[in-house]
Amino acid sequence: MSAAVFNSRWSERPAGLRDGDALPSGFRLAGIACGVKAPDSAELDLGLIVCDAPAAVSAARFCDSGVLAAPVLATRERCDCSAIRAVVANSGNANAATGEAGIAAAVHVQQAAAAALGLAAREVALASTGVIGVPLPGERIAAAMPALVAALGTDPTDFAHAIRTTDAIDKHATLRADLPAGSINLAAQAKGAGMISPRFATMLCFVQTDAALERVTAERLLRAAVARSFDRISVDGQLSTNDTVILMASGSSGVSVEPGGEDEAAFGEALDALLRALALRIVADGEGARRIGRVLVRGGEQQAAERVARAVADSPLVKTALFGGDPNWGRVAQAVGAAMPGSAPLRFEIAIEGVTVARDGALAQFDEGALAAAVARDEVLYEIGLPGEGCEAELFFSDLGYDYVKINAEYTT
Amino acid sequence: MSAAVFNSRWSERPAGLRDGDALPSGFRLAGIACGVKAPDSAELDLGLIVCDAPAAVSAARFCDSGVLAAPVLATRERCDCSAIRAVVANSGNANAATGEAGIAAAVHVQQAAAAALGLAAREVALASTGVIGVPLPGERIAAAMPALVAALGTDPTDFAHAIRTTDAIDKHATLRADLPAGSINLAAQAKGAGMISPRFATMLCFVQTDAALERVTAERLLRAAVARSFDRISVDGQLSTNDTVILMASGSSGVSVEPGGEDEAAFGEALDALLRALALRIVADGEGARRIGRVLVRGGEQQAAERVARAVADSPLVKTALFGGDPNWGRVAQAVGAAMPGSAPLRFEIAIEGVTVARDGALAQFDEGALAAAVARDEVLYEIGLPGEGCEAELFFSDLGYDYVKINAEYTT
Repeated sequence: MSAAVFNSRWSERPAGLRDGDALPSGFRLAGIACGVKAPDSAELDLGLIVCDAPAAVSAARFCDSGVLAAPVLATRERCDCSAIRAVVANSGNANAATGEAGIAAAVHVQQAAAAALGLAAREVALASTGVIGVPLPGERIAAAMPALVAALGTDPTDFAHAIRTTDAIDKHATLRADLPAGSINLAAQAKGAGMISPRFATMLCFVQTDAALERVTAERLLRAAVARSFDRISVDGQLSTNDTVILMASGSSGVSVEPGGEDEAAFGEALDALLRALALRIVADGEGARRIGRVLVRGGEQQAAERVARAVADSPLVKTALFGGDPNWGRVAQAVGAAMPGSAPLRFEIAIEGVTVARDGALAQFDEGALAAAVARDEVLYEIGLPGEGCEAELFFSDLGYDYVKINAEYTT
Repeated sequence: MSAAVFNSRWSERPAGLRDGDALPSGFRLAGIACGVKAPDSAELDLGLIVCDAPAAVSAARFCDSGVLAAPVLATRERCDCSAIRAVVANSGNANAATGEAGIAAAVHVQQAAAAALGLAAREVALASTGVIGVPLPGERIAAAMPALVAALGTDPTDFAHAIRTTDAIDKHATLRADLPAGSINLAAQAKGAGMISPRFATMLCFVQTDAALERVTAERLLRAAVARSFDRISVDGQLSTNDTVILMASGSSGVSVEPGGEDEAAFGEALDALLRALALRIVADGEGARRIGRVLVRGGEQQAAERVARAVADSPLVKTALFGGDPNWGRVAQAVGAAMPGSAPLRFEIAIEGVTVARDGALAQFDEGALAAAVARDEVLYEIGLPGEGCEAELFFSDLGYDYVKINAEYTT
């Protein structure tokens, strides 16, 4: 695998983070066709990650919906999320809004995987993605455990495919990072294309490393990296029921990341860069997306900056203009105003790709040809200035085009 | 004009509210082509309402954006909104995000209209709709005043057309209401198709009556009617910079609506029904809309009910499913969960057109054929139950289809 995931000008690859050529040691992955997406289909829809190091350390992050899926509830409440040894993930069915029967199906899968792997059930995390409100075929998945375990190997490709739903582009990478203490391997597999909200995107992401991390370090670094990546993207502003990110560290490299030192800083930088690159891949794969936008708001109040960034990123008027390559900055102004009730007349500024189109709350003189060319490119930067200074909020978002409608009007239960 | 605006099962026409055959006495309206939409175009884009009764009473409501358009600021701050005698309204240019020059252009139009009509400038309200961030041709509009005044008459059709932008269907009506004190006439002209949010829709609406109202009565009834109509609709969740609703009462019928009595109740009921019918017309005309939805949330907390109603009405996943006639209730569950963080597992219920699809937070047994038939109709009712009882919130919303993208990716500055 290459690290072609770093293909946006907004995802910088730090020095010392190279393409890797192997899955981190201590891990095996598998992906098979289990018939969850459709009975008797050859589509991969069931995946497994196993860490063979008994002292594995992990950390996990979940979304916060009132309608949390059964796999999230089962993992959050039944696992020790700092010592996960295996993950069973399926696509084709979210196992959400499925009630007690859904929990029972999840627990059945968890127990079957634990038995097949010789682990305790609390060491097996679950993740699902797909249609909401349809019973999960837990028996079918449990019965597939022997085949799934037999498929385990060191190529993550099948696992990465097994967790995809409407995803059209790859979102996995294998990297090698040079830390002061030595070189380590890092791999990640993500999925996500729709139901992506800045309150934590609707997605799954699994990260493996052979570095040795303490539990608190894994928790701290994952929390920070998610806040700067998956929590900063929006395809359609729709929070999912199933978002799950799990970091697992085998320690098999023998390279130890001591808390608070240069190794933690370097590992954190690599993890940040990887998750941010994958997050941008999710935005670029936003259902039917042609272009991606970045909105960067600066001003004197953090909450106002956040509100404005979300209003712009989630505006269907801004998103359709981005799709159309339309330099209609008035819709950006409209979204800014909607997020700032009671503040009229607001002294805002708007610059698109460095072209200042509004200043002091009103249109500015600008080169229309330069702006038209700028908004026709693949990535468009919107900078918004609010009164005051010192605070900043950014979000990455996809456009809204015909294919979003096509995918979502025709992708059904 | 007929009262064909009452064409939804959700807009009931009260007994005693009949089709009218004349504009309320005391009013004259006009609409002409002024070249605001495009120079030398024959498209109507400038309208005027005049009340010839010196003792006219009025009330006005505006949206609350941080980027309020110049006509809103000029009307709100320079007019006595309880004694408006004329309204100048244009389409093709919102005069928003236009700064001091925009205010100056608005004031210039206001003064030119006042001079042409022999009124004080504070008696002339302004309203604009169209593209944001483009200078208003104030000189051109002021120069058109003689022609506009010369066009005044008792047929509201041209005025109704002059305020339209992307509107595809008529939104005006002339009605006759029987109050205990006597019969009165009521007319209204509205526009709105995109940039429609439940925090007060992006629209203009002008209401005329020949009933005699006290100022406080006009203010109270308009506030209540807007809260139950234009504040309950969403096309795309996008609050505008220009929303304006103005009620003008000439008193010319000689029928007086005394505060607090049966006449006020009957007049309020007629006004409510009219604005609600027009609001539903705006939703039905939601850019590219094929179907309209109504979400009705019941539960123990008002704020939660409001949040859930807005989350469902503004979800592009719910809206594309509505467009596709897709019985994908899982997306409704997802929106409910997103609006209720920290409440999992939430014991919600969902019924679509009376078919209960989820109960106790999980899928219910239901007749799939009945549900599929129900969501293929023009109007779809979503009822959501949250824990508790006593509170209720409703919203009307349009679907999201290919034509929304087409209109908004190609409708530009």
